[in-house]
Amino acid sequence: MSERVVVVGADAAGMSAASQAKRLRGDDLEVVALERGHHTSFSACGIPYWIGGDVGSIDQLVARTAQQHRANGIDLRMRTEATGLDLDRREVEVRDHEAGSTYRLGFDQLVLATGARPRRPDIPGIDADGVFGVQTLDDGERVLDALQDGPRRAVVVGGGYIGVEMAEAMVNRGLSVTVATRSAEPMVTLDPDMGRQVHDAMTAMDIEVLTSVRVDAFETGDDGRVRAVVTDQGELPADLVVLGTGVSPETTLAAEAGLPLGHWGGLETDLQMRVFDEPGVWAAGDCVESIDLVSGNRVHVALGTHANKQGRVLGTNLGGGYATFPGVVGTAVSKVCDLEIARTGLRERDCDAVGFAYLTVNVDSTTRAGYFPGAAPVTVKLVVEQRTGRLLGGQIVGREDSAKRIDVLAVALWNRMTVEEISALDLGYAPPFSPVWDPVLIAARKAADSVRAG
Amino acid sequence: MSERVVVVGADAAGMSAASQAKRLRGDDLEVVALERGHHTSFSACGIPYWIGGDVGSIDQLVARTAQQHRANGIDLRMRTEATGLDLDRREVEVRDHEAGSTYRLGFDQLVLATGARPRRPDIPGIDADGVFGVQTLDDGERVLDALQDGPRRAVVVGGGYIGVEMAEAMVNRGLSVTVATRSAEPMVTLDPDMGRQVHDAMTAMDIEVLTSVRVDAFETGDDGRVRAVVTDQGELPADLVVLGTGVSPETTLAAEAGLPLGHWGGLETDLQMRVFDEPGVWAAGDCVESIDLVSGNRVHVALGTHANKQGRVLGTNLGGGYATFPGVVGTAVSKVCDLEIARTGLRERDCDAVGFAYLTVNVDSTTRAGYFPGAAPVTVKLVVEQRTGRLLGGQIVGREDSAKRIDVLAVALWNRMTVEEISALDLGYAPPFSPVWDPVLIAARKAADSVRAG
Repeated sequence: MSERVVVVGADAAGMSAASQAKRLRGDDLEVVALERGHHTSFSACGIPYWIGGDVGSIDQLVARTAQQHRANGIDLRMRTEATGLDLDRREVEVRDHEAGSTYRLGFDQLVLATGARPRRPDIPGIDADGVFGVQTLDDGERVLDALQDGPRRAVVVGGGYIGVEMAEAMVNRGLSVTVATRSAEPMVTLDPDMGRQVHDAMTAMDIEVLTSVRVDAFETGDDGRVRAVVTDQGELPADLVVLGTGVSPETTLAAEAGLPLGHWGGLETDLQMRVFDEPGVWAAGDCVESIDLVSGNRVHVALGTHANKQGRVLGTNLGGGYATFPGVVGTAVSKVCDLEIARTGLRERDCDAVGFAYLTVNVDSTTRAGYFPGAAPVTVKLVVEQRTGRLLGGQIVGREDSAKRIDVLAVALWNRMTVEEISALDLGYAPPFSPVWDPVLIAARKAADSVRAG
Repeated sequence: MSERVVVVGADAAGMSAASQAKRLRGDDLEVVALERGHHTSFSACGIPYWIGGDVGSIDQLVARTAQQHRANGIDLRMRTEATGLDLDRREVEVRDHEAGSTYRLGFDQLVLATGARPRRPDIPGIDADGVFGVQTLDDGERVLDALQDGPRRAVVVGGGYIGVEMAEAMVNRGLSVTVATRSAEPMVTLDPDMGRQVHDAMTAMDIEVLTSVRVDAFETGDDGRVRAVVTDQGELPADLVVLGTGVSPETTLAAEAGLPLGHWGGLETDLQMRVFDEPGVWAAGDCVESIDLVSGNRVHVALGTHANKQGRVLGTNLGGGYATFPGVVGTAVSKVCDLEIARTGLRERDCDAVGFAYLTVNVDSTTRAGYFPGAAPVTVKLVVEQRTGRLLGGQIVGREDSAKRIDVLAVALWNRMTVEEISALDLGYAPPFSPVWDPVLIAARKAADSVRAG
């Protein structure tokens, strides 16, 4: 007799889990996947590039279509939303938006992969036409539709990854763009000294950047469309507004069913992606919190790469295998124009928050041997525990071939290496790829000197 | 009363050591550095790019000139060769090639940084005009001089890094080039299945590649210049021959003085770069053997990045500080045309030699998200210990943005990670930089599956 698993949310995490479990158990497992939107298994991270025109069509962002999932034996129901959850009776309440019908669906195992939603600050006018979050392909289509109307001025509220990437996308579409951020510098995932370089690169590409600004309201015209963003530094005319103020776990369904949420509003799971104390309930992706392996705290990091890994781990365990998702170290990379931006581990403010005593070093170097054509500037910042010399975090800003160097620091964090140890690492060297001392090694060496000097 | 250190060999290792010791001890340390050649502190790795025309002038390859070293208080003597060593009397016998004079120089501390020399197989005609090793800037100048004579056909003997890079350099100079290698595929630092891709790339850029070939003689004309390479597969006409048959530690001076040499003919030092059992004698760079941290064996790896690190470690200890060079994991990166080549750790044959039971996986992926412009093919091969799943080695061949991904595997090797652990790593992901599963992670995941399957 086969077991039924219901998967709520058919994007990266949910469909990775569904596919892996189905692969392992075949006909022994009935998999029903519910997706309230129009698309499945898409790359949310690709949306700014689609809007900016680097990626030609929405189809390219879909890793696997509904048809493909169905061909693999998954009962995928699109435009179908889980509206309620009865954990005692093991039933999901389901709304089919196409048919306009509602039904109840029993389950033996439940996978919550409900994702995240853009934070919508409680500001007058936030729900006006022309104010967009960018989280799903449906959101992306709405922004592209709005661009058809020939808007001239866009305001991005918030200076995180999505905000900065969307600003570049709209500049590429010919709009005049202002980014308004509450923080001292854009790219708040970096410390401000590194964010300053991002600020300069944005200014150089004609993006206006307003820092330390408070948004008070969105002013609308008679047609109900946004026409300005009201801030404590004055009014910014806007035909289109993008919210880049971060995302929160979408856990309404879970909360209403009585599942406990963590500090950041996400579900908490064990290493196998089982929701604690709820047998047969699993969760993965942007709706869960993860362990930060540097601080030991739970964190919420909405990123497709984690969603895919967690989904696969979940599906492996659900399918009778064994796998774990140990946690994250906070690695992220991005690009603004030709500036590459990367971070991993803790920023200075994170160290303050968790109680690490730290020192920092900044090093300017080049991506290739200084004499080799194409050598470009790169800055590496390290955050290091005092006395022990343990690496706590790293940030890299530079031109081509800068960002992925962060991976060395990510693996070093994973292994709790000291900067002394890092400075001895045997990294790839040849003139087209690195100076004879890789920038990361120079930074580690300098940090080790600082640790010794006390 | 100040102490005198004599440094033999004023390239990367010797001058890193000299500079660091002088920085730490100032007037308290008299530093005399002897260099038999015309150049100091140069990038040997840059020579092929200088010959190929990517690097415009010899000056760009010199990191620090003799004048700069002297300004830092180092008594640097150019064209001055250490011809003998009396360890009992603590004296070096010195020949000043400019003055034509000979003298003896006392020392309290001795640094041997005599480098490596190209292997010259014992083949008739090997010393003919037009047969070049490429190890020093002086060598490079000789090759460039020979190119002035308008040679049309070049033969490279050996298919290692230098051989392949020099082949490309001479194609760039308009020569017709043949590479003749003894092994089954060029780039013998890779396993043959990966070397095959290098072979194809070389063929595509009109380099003729002859494999499994034995070179029997160099035929010379009446003018004493090489005119053909005689092999067991026939005669190859050649106006110019480059030896790419690897290098050996240059330890003649040390051996004549009675210092013991290791298995590969290099000096053996402790972690601080002191020659074992010889108080006051230090060594660093291409003339020493290092510990391979994967196998535990001593190895000889001639690479500028190691020479610089070892020199700095040596200088720190000589200067009264404390630093160690723990060893290497065998990382190397290179480029042939637009093909990037990288390796770290053990190849299959190395595993056989040291007794590791292993399995391998190969994965084809892309350097960016598949839908992102510029996504290019990359192949990752992993060599993994059976049962334990410990990573033993990795090889990467691909287009732009492939090679430096090897660093992730190098740090993983350093930390003795298993492929299961590696597959969970938090590496940087964004569509312009990586698929949602980085190629390295896909390979680790596949390898972990293979380990589990036994």
